Amino acid sequence: MEFVHQTLPQRVRFAPGQAAAGVAAEVAELDGRRVMLIASDREAEDAARIAADVPVVVSHHEVAMHVPVPVAERAREVARQHRADVVLTIGGGSATGLGKAVALTSGLPVVAVPTTYAGSEATDVWGMTEDGTKTTGVDARVLPRSVVYDAGLTLSLPVDLTVASTLNALAHSVDALWAPRADPINAALALEGARGLVSALPAVADEPEAMPGREGLLYGAYLAAVAFTSAGSGLHHKICHVLGGRFDLPHAPTHAVVLPHVLALNAPFAPDAERRLADVFDADTAVAGLEALRRRVRAPGALRDLGLRESDIPDAAEAILPVVPASNPAPVGRDELERLLHDAWEGTDPR
Amino acid sequence: MEFVHQTLPQRVRFAPGQAAAGVAAEVAELDGRRVMLIASDREAEDAARIAADVPVVVSHHEVAMHVPVPVAERAREVARQHRADVVLTIGGGSATGLGKAVALTSGLPVVAVPTTYAGSEATDVWGMTEDGTKTTGVDARVLPRSVVYDAGLTLSLPVDLTVASTLNALAHSVDALWAPRADPINAALALEGARGLVSALPAVADEPEAMPGREGLLYGAYLAAVAFTSAGSGLHHKICHVLGGRFDLPHAPTHAVVLPHVLALNAPFAPDAERRLADVFDADTAVAGLEALRRRVRAPGALRDLGLRESDIPDAAEAILPVVPASNPAPVGRDELERLLHDAWEGTDPR
Repeated sequence: MEFVHQTLPQRVRFAPGQAAAGVAAEVAELDGRRVMLIASDREAEDAARIAADVPVVVSHHEVAMHVPVPVAERAREVARQHRADVVLTIGGGSATGLGKAVALTSGLPVVAVPTTYAGSEATDVWGMTEDGTKTTGVDARVLPRSVVYDAGLTLSLPVDLTVASTLNALAHSVDALWAPRADPINAALALEGARGLVSALPAVADEPEAMPGREGLLYGAYLAAVAFTSAGSGLHHKICHVLGGRFDLPHAPTHAVVLPHVLALNAPFAPDAERRLADVFDADTAVAGLEALRRRVRAPGALRDLGLRESDIPDAAEAILPVVPASNPAPVGRDELERLLHDAWEGTDPR
Repeated sequence: MEFVHQTLPQRVRFAPGQAAAGVAAEVAELDGRRVMLIASDREAEDAARIAADVPVVVSHHEVAMHVPVPVAERAREVARQHRADVVLTIGGGSATGLGKAVALTSGLPVVAVPTTYAGSEATDVWGMTEDGTKTTGVDARVLPRSVVYDAGLTLSLPVDLTVASTLNALAHSVDALWAPRADPINAALALEGARGLVSALPAVADEPEAMPGREGLLYGAYLAAVAFTSAGSGLHHKICHVLGGRFDLPHAPTHAVVLPHVLALNAPFAPDAERRLADVFDADTAVAGLEALRRRVRAPGALRDLGLRESDIPDAAEAILPVVPASNPAPVGRDELERLLHDAWEGTDPR
């Protein structure tokens, strides 16, 4: 038992149906008097309601995917001009990401109110894009000081997006179990996160507006992201990063399709992780449990349905090969990668 | 699911047999160039070896239980005179506590190397005594920035102390499940901590110098303390605080004796905690599991053997009654307290 574990500081408030009161409490905790509100146009109305009880000095709605540098620069200038002392982000990964970009140069504390299961709010990783190139970094200043989770804000997320986004969150947990900085502490958090996701998803798929299930998903997604931040990117995330970056496949559905194949590859070489995951799924094996869940919630099944061509597979394997983590339990060469990608492309049953 | 969870920042390094290298890495991480070493006289020799690779400007050995204020003042003055930039504590709760006292007024970062299972290194609580009165407080500055656990330093802890100290650590986990700020996150950490303690203790009791068992105890004790800090003091700790303060009973053995009786009282009213603890013990019920473990390791059994008189019980109950946490699952009045204390005094089987 030899490892270094870094725990990041954060307050997290689960406040179902009470986002406005939760935000007011967290802004007060930070002694915030000049709040910069960041939310996309689409979420502007919700955001105004949620921020009703805090002293907003400016509402900023220019939010864009992957945080283009000019968008970040304009947001930073707005924060300066209005002498903001707290940044309040309401929305998905793009809104959180923009808040982080402001925090990166200003040091302003961020209060994040996530409305998806992406998990960016639990990480100290920032990302920006310029001329199509994404730059990422790690900085303590960008980790939101507080997170307010109100499951009521996620009720309207469509079922197909919810399923893909939840499986994307589940991939944070599963991949954490064999990622480069995997340790017993982030494994415990990963498994608790997985438990939350796995136990809540079927209910949400059946009845998307049921609060308890939505609460379980936010809770599970949070811990999955905490574990992932701590453990780093494992094989699954390396594969999905290449598929997303080179072939422009959609983020969450790609994760949903690839995960069972990575799990099937690694499970025989990671018996402890396999057994603990099987317990989480309440199934005989982890792979069987995940596949049963995926079928139950009609998860996306094949990369060919997401835009990958069969002829792309050798290129993809070539690009993944040099970034396979040394920590991966199963030995992985070109053959294993091509086989895995082909199975995921075709949508074979991983069991 | 409605709660606020605060995660405290800390680096923790599990480095079995490698305390010196671990300490060097952590001091370097803090860019420490002028280290004040705190260790009791008894541990001075070990401490010098452990600190051999860091720039120690002063070794301070005046360590005393419960951190008397004059002892704290002298340590602070030594830190000032020597312009220390890092405080390195090596030892049990008293050494860690003195380091915290220095950090409280100086803001100096602390690197803690614990040699017991007390867990003070995982908390932001400080304590000092003056004229027999203990003052405690919570301050972010006193939380050690880094903790280095080397199980090799615990090999010589006698078996009876190890057993009592482990059950004291286990009480952190168990009591966290119904403490005032109990939430699903600190429950997951508490149970993971309990798992570490419960699975390691029998092996250590049989073979005290076996490293894997000692590593498991440090690991479990750490997470138990993290969970306890997060969740706060539950009924068990309120009871033991009164018994220790009023009747001067020994700390760890008192916890070891009282725990099964608090668990037996609360289990029927906390079925989820009961079931999850039973799983940790791999037993039919949590109470049966704890009692089997206690017998297996010959834990202390009765408060009457620790110095409590039967006639003290009404006074003790009287003192505990006003501090019973509102969060306690079982209803607790004077009768329940007297019965519990009497059972613990007599050492009845809680099953």
